[in-house]
Parts: sequence; C-alpha cells; structure tokens
Amino acid sequence: MSKFRFELLAQDGAARAGVVRTPRGDIRTPAFMPVGTAGSVKAMLPQSVRETGADIILGNTYHLMLRPGAERVARLGGLHKFMGWERPILTDSGGFQVMSLAKLRKITDDGVRFQSHVDGAAEFLSPERAMEIQRLLGSDIQMVLDECPAFGASEAEIEKSLALSMRWARRSKAAFGEQPGKACFGIVQGGVFPRLRARSAADLQEIGFDGYAVGGLAVGEGQEAMFKTLEATVPHLPVDRPRYLMGVGKPDDIVGAVLRGIDMFDCVLPTRSGRNGQAFTWSGPLNLRNARHAEDASPLDEKCQCPACRQFSRAYLHHAVKANEIIAAMLLTWHNLTFYQDLMAGLWAAIASGSFVAFANGVLANYETCARVGVDWCTGS
Amino acid sequence: MSKFRFELLAQDGAARAGVVRTPRGDIRTPAFMPVGTAGSVKAMLPQSVRETGADIILGNTYHLMLRPGAERVARLGGLHKFMGWERPILTDSGGFQVMSLAKLRKITDDGVRFQSHVDGAAEFLSPERAMEIQRLLGSDIQMVLDECPAFGASEAEIEKSLALSMRWARRSKAAFGEQPGKACFGIVQGGVFPRLRARSAADLQEIGFDGYAVGGLAVGEGQEAMFKTLEATVPHLPVDRPRYLMGVGKPDDIVGAVLRGIDMFDCVLPTRSGRNGQAFTWSGPLNLRNARHAEDASPLDEKCQCPACRQFSRAYLHHAVKANEIIAAMLLTWHNLTFYQDLMAGLWAAIASGSFVAFANGVLANYETCARVGVDWCTGS
Repeated sequence: MSKFRFELLAQDGAARAGVVRTPRGDIRTPAFMPVGTAGSVKAMLPQSVRETGADIILGNTYHLMLRPGAERVARLGGLHKFMGWERPILTDSGGFQVMSLAKLRKITDDGVRFQSHVDGAAEFLSPERAMEIQRLLGSDIQMVLDECPAFGASEAEIEKSLALSMRWARRSKAAFGEQPGKACFGIVQGGVFPRLRARSAADLQEIGFDGYAVGGLAVGEGQEAMFKTLEATVPHLPVDRPRYLMGVGKPDDIVGAVLRGIDMFDCVLPTRSGRNGQAFTWSGPLNLRNARHAEDASPLDEKCQCPACRQFSRAYLHHAVKANEIIAAMLLTWHNLTFYQDLMAGLWAAIASGSFVAFANGVLANYETCARVGVDWCTGS
Repeated sequence: MSKFRFELLAQDGAARAGVVRTPRGDIRTPAFMPVGTAGSVKAMLPQSVRETGADIILGNTYHLMLRPGAERVARLGGLHKFMGWERPILTDSGGFQVMSLAKLRKITDDGVRFQSHVDGAAEFLSPERAMEIQRLLGSDIQMVLDECPAFGASEAEIEKSLALSMRWARRSKAAFGEQPGKACFGIVQGGVFPRLRARSAADLQEIGFDGYAVGGLAVGEGQEAMFKTLEATVPHLPVDRPRYLMGVGKPDDIVGAVLRGIDMFDCVLPTRSGRNGQAFTWSGPLNLRNARHAEDASPLDEKCQCPACRQFSRAYLHHAVKANEIIAAMLLTWHNLTFYQDLMAGLWAAIASGSFVAFANGVLANYETCARVGVDWCTGS
C-alpha cells in the first residue's frame, strides 16, 4: 500500500501549496474539509460533495461512537463504505464535542466520562478508545485526543490542560501504532500563549506525527488573537508536514491562516449557514431571507457554476428559504461548499503563480470587513 | 403552438395506456404526478425528479397564491422557470387545500373567503380567481374550482355541494377561456353516490373539458367504496379524454384505479413517506426506523436503480433516519418516486402487452394486504 505523505509544491511568502498523497486519493492543499458529522455532509449526497471539488471530508468521532457506533460501522465495512464516500476521511478524536455537547462530563488522567446526548447512556473516551474508534471507522487521518479548555481560562489553567493533552497525545500515538497508509496528527494546544504553543509544538514533534493541527482556536478569542497565535505557533512546526487549523472558519479566517502557513481547514460554517438561508458569494455574504431578494431574478452568484446559481434565481432561493423547503438547504449548502472549494482552488493557484497577496486582497475586500456591512451572521466565528 | 391532446394507445380490459401531448412534452399514461406543493417537490432537485421518470408534476394553487404569490411568480417568468422544471405542470384549483388548511373559511356562491395559514391575511378564492392564478403560474393543466365536502356528509348535503361545484365548473371554464396548448380539466364530484357521480359527469361534459378528474375520493371512504365509486363514474366519462383520480394513492389504490380506467394520479404519499423513513419497494413497504435494519448491509430494494438503492445499505438509511439527517429524506424520497414511476412504467408495458392482470397481481401480492402485514403507515390513504 502506498504511503501517506505530504509534498510541498509551491510557496508564496509563508503561504503553501501542496498535496497530501494517500492511498484513497490526493488532497490538494490548502484544503477545506466539509464536515460530515454523523455520516453525512448534511443536505448533500456524497457525489455532490465531490462535485464541489472536495478531496477529503471530516467525520466526528463523538457523534459516530454514539450513533451508529464504531463497532457497527466496522462490521458494515467501515465509514467510507457506510456513507458512500471513497476518498479520504479525517476524523477528529471526539474531544472537542465531548467538551461542548456531552453532559455530566468528568475528566481524569484516564480519559473523559460523560453522558451521551443521544440516549443518556454513560460513555467513556480515553486516548486509547478514541484511536480505537477512529481505526474501526477506517479513518485516513486520525487525530489524537486532547483536552479543549474553554476560552478565557487563565494561563495556569491552560498550562495544566496542555500537560494533560500532551500526555494524551503520547498515549494516542502509541495506540495508533502502525497503520500503513493512515496518518496520525498531533494537536498543538496552549491557548493564546506563545510560550505554551511553542512548548506544545516541541512536545508533539518529540513524539512525532504525520501532521500537526492547531487546536483551541476560533473559540471566542477573535480573529486578531487567532492570527497572532498562528504567528507564534506555525514557525515551530516542521516544514515537511501538513498543518491543520481545526474548526476554522470564515473565508477571511482561511485566507489569513493560509497567509500564515496553514494547509488544512474544516468548519461547519458553509453547511450550517446553508441550512439557515445564508450564502457566501464572491461579492460577499448574503442572507437569502432578506426581502430584497424576493423578486430578484438574478443568480445567487454570477461567478459560480453550482446548481443553485446555474438553475435558480435569488427570488426562488428566497422563497424556498421562507417556505422552509428542504431544497433551500440542499441548494445553499451545495453553493456554499462550492464557494469554499473554489476559494481553496483560487488560493492554490495564487500561491503557485506567486500572486497570493493580490488574490487574498480581492477576497478580503468582500469578507474582511463583513462585520461592518451589517451581516451579523458573518461576524461570529 | 401544438395542441393539447390525448392519444389512447392500448387497452387491456378497462385499463388504458396512452400519452398526453403538450407543448412542454409528452405525458405517458398511466401517469403519476409528484407533488410540488410550494414550488418544490420536497427534498428533490428538479433534474432528480425527472431522473425518476416523471413527465409532469403538480403544483398547489393554494400554497403558491399565499407564498410567493401568483403575480410575483408571473413577474419572474412563470412557475416552470421559477422552480426549474421545464416539463408540464398541472395545478389544482386550491379548493381542496382551502377546505383542509385555511382558517375561518366562509363559502358563498361567489367563492371562498378564508384566512391564510401563512400570515393570517384575509384571502378570497373564486372560480375566476382560481383560474387567473393558474394562468399567471403558467400551468399546463388547470383545474376548475370545486367544493370538497368532508367524507360522511349526507346525500342531500353532497347533492347541494355538487350543484355549487357544477356552477363553479362552468364559471371556471369560462374564465379559462382560450389558451393554446393549455388544458382545463373538470372535476366529477358526488361523494359515493352513483346517481350524483353520473349527473356530475354529464354536467361537466355538457360544459366540455380537455380532461376529467374524479375528486372527493381518498378522504376516508376506504378502498372498496373508492373502487365502487370509480366503477359508477368512469363509464360516464368520455373515452377520448384523460381521466385523473385526484390525491390517490397507495400502490394498490393506483393499480385498482388503472384497472377501472383511470389515467392520471397525484399523491403526497411517496414524498411524505420518504421524509418519515418509509419506503415502497417491490417486496412491499418498509419502515427504515425499524431496528431490524440497523446492521442490514443489503440495499433497500434489489430491483431498484435509484441512488438510495445503488449506493447505500439499509443500515445506512436506518442510521440516517434515526439521526434525522436530511440525506434520509433526500434518498427515501428519491427512492419512493422512482418506485412510483417504475410502477407506472410497468403498468404501461403490461397494458401494451396485454398482461395487465398478471402484472397487477404481482404488485398486489405485496401491497393489497399491507394492512395485514403489520405496516400501519401503509393502511391509511
């Protein structure tokens, strides 16, 4: 079986264009991974996700362990077969969702005890179990279990949490073992504290991973603090491994993170926004609920080739959103994922051609200041 | 512009195979029309509806008049363009939905005053307005406004209601006027009373319509009474016009109605069931919520070529239904519409080849007795 490897193909400043080779196909970077939480990228068929240009999707260990269960997915031939997606899948470790969704959670050095939000059952997640679940799912890129402290924790609390995450990272890597063609990524923690981020990056490299994620950001610290933290973290990461900024983000977050050397992203924003009547376009964000679209016969985005833009008017999308028709979620999700993949393709080409700054400025003209143009939904992370 | 016309191509007993020619394309009969209530066949893209084999869809005047409004749809180029469906569309007159969905309705000889269920606004629907709305929408087959008495009304009440419906039919036809390439269908009422059905059929033919619908059935009278009523009605309808049984039905209802000379059908059952985890298969109905499907790696229906059956297992569909994933509605709706269209194609071929009874018995072996095999959801109408 061919190996998992990262090839750096071009650089423009700190921005990188490359490709991650895996037995299930190449992942062009910068890469955006649509989120397929519970075995489905919501409101999309797998072939439609691929048509948007996605090379890889993300699955959530937390959701899948609770329903339908990792052992069940394994008996059914693994997650790829189960959900009809044959290309690479990255799974998170479940840590973030346990912290944000589960009830009655209790963290010890062993792991996390918690109550399922699905049926109230008592559950346990440890580094070893998180890796076992990801192996059972057949995940191509498996993430270590980490603790995700809430934003606002003190430096001392973050330092203590980081120590636990680094112990768990070592146990996760040991549990991952040897899986030809599969990758295990470590996760840099440390809040917004450069000293802790640098230490975390060093600790993880001592263990040795196939890729390095930056976790614990986009949790409320704001874009400026996020970018500063990236600037304090990325230089401590190895050049020859992919770098993944978890849970990010808005188009301007992604552009700014690529500018600072990040290669991979995931976020529910394009899919969740699509279910809420919100669209990302090359002219900026749009809320299709707005009455000004009610008789607008023009397409959602003149520059987009997705079915929503080729076959329907803004007036139709407005109507479908207002009438709560499922097709609104289907079309706007398809559009938003297309926009995100087109954005990534644009970033790739801009880096390869040495025109990153010009391309980034073109995007940021419509996105960096979206808070100021009155689109509330675009201002959060 | 070519004319609207019906060609009878084959008969097997009273069962008929034919084709309705329209400027927007042919409609093979027996035809099943998926319901696109508010400008969308729920959970389906228009091209997917076409891929299931549908030649025509149905739109609801009541829903569309309230939102987005007939004049707005007209300004946007008509319903076909608005919703991205270029083939024929039949619209109902709004009468049935006004009776079942609207509040504070008051029926006079003029028409029906009612309150919108969307925003509470006062609305009015008359034969003239119903036809105007359908013309604004650009409907290919426009239905007269009729009154739909509730099941259980006495013969005297039905007779009185019928008289009103026949006056409205005459006004509807006059309001329809001359629309080259478009058709206007009358609706036979009269409850379960053969005398009234025969009179209604005669009255409508005196007015003269392009097709004849049978209304007021599948409202609780049961399959046996429905079939008896068809037997008392169809012989009074002209041979050279299409016959449309409104709001029907289950696969066995359709087979039994085709056996009795019906050509066209519409029903929310395949789409609504699809959103509720229920599937129609060649082996009978299935409820995907049932735990017995949780680890079943086999396809939903071995004989079906739709994406749900080609690309996914029953186990996946079960999971998606249980997790309330939108893909469950998308896949099961696609499957159910495929099943219905395959059923219609099978009826066509069976009639053309003179094997209707054998084909019908093959279907009915799995459907006629579905009430008895413990599938509750299949027993209602």
